[in-house]
Amino acid sequence: MARTNASMRRVRLLAGVTGLAVASTGVAYAADISETGGANRHDGDQTAEIAAQVKFGKAKNVILFIGDGMGDSEITVARNYLVGASGQLEGIDSLPLTGQYTTYALHKGDDPLTTGDDTGKPDYVTDSAASGTGWSTGTKTYNGAISVGLDGTTAHQTLLEWAKTQGLKTGDITTAEVQDATPAVQLSHVADRGCYTPVGQTVTVDGKSQKKDTAKCPGQKSIEEQILDTRADVVMGGGKGWFDAVAANGRSVLQNAQDAGFQVPTTKAEMTAVTKADQSAPVLGLFASGNMQTRYKATPATADGYAKPAAECQTNDTAPDGTSVTWPGTQPTLADMTSKAIGLLDNDKGFFLQVEGASIDKQDHAANACGQIGETKDLDEAVKVGMDFAKTHGDTLVIVTADHAHTSQIINAEDITGGSSVPLAGTYNLLTHDGTVETVAYGTAQLGGSQQHTGTQLRIAGFGPGAANAVGLSDQTDVFDTIKDALSGVGLDPAPSAGTTTKTVTVTKEVAPARLTSAVDSKVRTLAKQIRKAKGDRKAKLKAQLRAYRAVQRQLH
Amino acid sequence: MARTNASMRRVRLLAGVTGLAVASTGVAYAADISETGGANRHDGDQTAEIAAQVKFGKAKNVILFIGDGMGDSEITVARNYLVGASGQLEGIDSLPLTGQYTTYALHKGDDPLTTGDDTGKPDYVTDSAASGTGWSTGTKTYNGAISVGLDGTTAHQTLLEWAKTQGLKTGDITTAEVQDATPAVQLSHVADRGCYTPVGQTVTVDGKSQKKDTAKCPGQKSIEEQILDTRADVVMGGGKGWFDAVAANGRSVLQNAQDAGFQVPTTKAEMTAVTKADQSAPVLGLFASGNMQTRYKATPATADGYAKPAAECQTNDTAPDGTSVTWPGTQPTLADMTSKAIGLLDNDKGFFLQVEGASIDKQDHAANACGQIGETKDLDEAVKVGMDFAKTHGDTLVIVTADHAHTSQIINAEDITGGSSVPLAGTYNLLTHDGTVETVAYGTAQLGGSQQHTGTQLRIAGFGPGAANAVGLSDQTDVFDTIKDALSGVGLDPAPSAGTTTKTVTVTKEVAPARLTSAVDSKVRTLAKQIRKAKGDRKAKLKAQLRAYRAVQRQLH
Repeated sequence: MARTNASMRRVRLLAGVTGLAVASTGVAYAADISETGGANRHDGDQTAEIAAQVKFGKAKNVILFIGDGMGDSEITVARNYLVGASGQLEGIDSLPLTGQYTTYALHKGDDPLTTGDDTGKPDYVTDSAASGTGWSTGTKTYNGAISVGLDGTTAHQTLLEWAKTQGLKTGDITTAEVQDATPAVQLSHVADRGCYTPVGQTVTVDGKSQKKDTAKCPGQKSIEEQILDTRADVVMGGGKGWFDAVAANGRSVLQNAQDAGFQVPTTKAEMTAVTKADQSAPVLGLFASGNMQTRYKATPATADGYAKPAAECQTNDTAPDGTSVTWPGTQPTLADMTSKAIGLLDNDKGFFLQVEGASIDKQDHAANACGQIGETKDLDEAVKVGMDFAKTHGDTLVIVTADHAHTSQIINAEDITGGSSVPLAGTYNLLTHDGTVETVAYGTAQLGGSQQHTGTQLRIAGFGPGAANAVGLSDQTDVFDTIKDALSGVGLDPAPSAGTTTKTVTVTKEVAPARLTSAVDSKVRTLAKQIRKAKGDRKAKLKAQLRAYRAVQRQLH
Repeated sequence: MARTNASMRRVRLLAGVTGLAVASTGVAYAADISETGGANRHDGDQTAEIAAQVKFGKAKNVILFIGDGMGDSEITVARNYLVGASGQLEGIDSLPLTGQYTTYALHKGDDPLTTGDDTGKPDYVTDSAASGTGWSTGTKTYNGAISVGLDGTTAHQTLLEWAKTQGLKTGDITTAEVQDATPAVQLSHVADRGCYTPVGQTVTVDGKSQKKDTAKCPGQKSIEEQILDTRADVVMGGGKGWFDAVAANGRSVLQNAQDAGFQVPTTKAEMTAVTKADQSAPVLGLFASGNMQTRYKATPATADGYAKPAAECQTNDTAPDGTSVTWPGTQPTLADMTSKAIGLLDNDKGFFLQVEGASIDKQDHAANACGQIGETKDLDEAVKVGMDFAKTHGDTLVIVTADHAHTSQIINAEDITGGSSVPLAGTYNLLTHDGTVETVAYGTAQLGGSQQHTGTQLRIAGFGPGAANAVGLSDQTDVFDTIKDALSGVGLDPAPSAGTTTKTVTVTKEVAPARLTSAVDSKVRTLAKQIRKAKGDRKAKLKAQLRAYRAVQRQLH
């Protein structure tokens, strides 16, 4: 790791770190990025660093972070705003091993734009349900499906369910409703992601009467009832309102949870007070009626947004039900939940934890640049918590990725002069950490409509044993195998040192004393003789010893 | 590399390979991607494979492939169409080590949407000129600048220029005009990318009178004159028309090239006939008046494209000047040029070659889905040529990346039902290799206008010595150092075996003979005594020896 301009880059990195501590105001920009080498991110050759980060062997714990809708564009939008174009997000950007993965779903039924039936063919733009089913079960399915196959009924075992069978503790946390697709894919199996509550139920969520029942999932239990049945040690997020639905036994699903021994904290203070989470008293944290409150105030894109002065994001002061609450109110942040979950789950046998930053997606759907940036920041802080734990626990695999990409694009307002160069998209101008303008465009739906997911491959990043599987091109379904293999230790590539006491030993030939050399030579001769006489297991064992001594011998001669 | 469903995946991979050989018609879809594990791309744990791909040491040759405008979305659009969502592009997807990099440029001057001067602050959406300057010189600059700093005059040495000083052979090939920004950044230094010809010149290009002179680059030689001065061994692409401009000596720039000993093939047949390229007779291949002809016919996006039946791409039968020519006409493909260039450049001292697939960008600007797909295919085939060479020449570093991302997005036509869900973007429906519909959207400019570059981080991938520097998050400017360090061998991380005799030694504790242990113990004691008496360099050397023996000692006790 030696390049001539390393010191210059250290200055820049330092500036970046300082930048993280301040609000994203238009602070003075680090002047050296216009110098040769000044914008480098690597501090010299990183070959040795990458080699060192490729870890073999079993993982005791796995933390899977999902930024819902967090494509590369969403990461860059947030980085530019929060820490500047040359900065580094403390959590998301800190994972050393990276690659791209594909996220497509499968068609269930015909597409009128083609001839013939499209069932089973790729549906190039996935939703969170099919996507989550991909990594939670290793199985591609149709949009809307929660951990069931193309038939809508075949339940595929999820990573969390499997981890429970292995004696690991399990957790599943989100900033969405806990019944939402991404958390649900680990905990339930339904034909349609909308099947939150028992059939026929209308409940009040975010102050409005709403209905998301099992009408579309005939014969299947609702997602929230299955959450109780699956009984992860820790489930946390929003969605409390939906638990008022009444189950077959005449009690609300929430009452059933409490009857079944679940602890149900509903504020950050109550969550903090929880001291254990296990099968006798699992935690079902419900911190909002519907989705949790987002960090930044809404800044909807407009047709002429690109021509307006650049502005900074503001802390959100409106709760999802429309009441006035300055974020976070009584909510924990995703980092708070992550930290608590890790504390509750960490145990001798290990744990599997899924963490979702859910509203990057929801704010992108709403063409809300500040909204999605605030939620990316929220996830970033949670990833940092996970990485801090993993760095001090060498047996923890951390994966950070997304379920699908989304609409937001960074375009150049400077180039827009009118006429044909006016974007079709809705736009918004942000005043970034660099003190200049970042224009974000949304064009996959009319303004006021729901902007679409997009089908591009996106970033997956990893740290710890098994993380090398993030490198290169993979598919979402590979994550299922990567995590299962890492936790089980089954099917893993053998580490170069597996089985014997192997270390990298530096032996400088010139100083090897004659009697050390002679001792090794003698042992090699003895072993060779013994091998000729030995049989079976003993012979194999002696051969392994001989190989070891010959390796030492080659260094000495 | 062992997972239970490996055989299933081999079937799928085989299907993918077969798929490459056929036209992208709606072929029957490989049924097993709906099964658990059926869509996996990894055939088991790839930790050992990634470890093996992290190569230390110097590279003799470097081939840098640039897909102009080829963001992750453009790669995915092409993959889905050409080989299906579960397929693998033979060239682009074959590089083992991957990451993301940032591409921002710098402002030169004020942005009216902010207060204060923005000079030197990030310009979040780069053009090909600033972007290419980033990797060719390691220096961030303003949009439009060709290998000069923010002042527009300071020339920064390019990778190609540096490689020449090291005695390497050099090449620079493109499907654009050779004067275009991406090839130009290796060969010239001008304040504005439009400075193709000597000042005041109007020439006929693609049948039209056009002017791109040095009016915006006062005191600087034109790009095409500098191409002659820099005298790479091989330069190939389009842009022949511009060489009709007349230089100060009264002769056309093309005549000056010929006078200076350049060989100037203008057809594939003439290119094939070239047998050598060196400083006495460099090659300036000019295969088109302006840009080279694209592979696929234009399919401009329309406001209601998402509602039209899905269609296949057709071979292009219109040359850039509007005449009727079925692609490739007399042109070489990018793969043809790459193959020829490698053959001409390969020599004992090594070479540096830049290869650009230029018109992915140009077709994306034109909201032409088939156009950009055909050009991605063209680049993919060229990358395969480079990889085939590199795989049989272990000392070759191959990098594949892009200069910036672009507008095209994959959206879900199925979800569009009217009203607010109608996309703002222009759209086009493709009938893919999977036999189903892929909807591509373009929304960063009005239809008929020029769609914009976008500012997202994008994929960089590598193979060979130094390729590990592609892993993780980097910046475009890091590529400059990665390539320069790899070719020079300066500043590289030492390979684990470099310097001292260091090897991974397996020593099984139980069998260590007492006299080996005793010899090491004795040496440790002796060294400890010597260190107490020693000073300076000798002391340091003895300490290093002690550390080595202590490592052995720890294994024996």
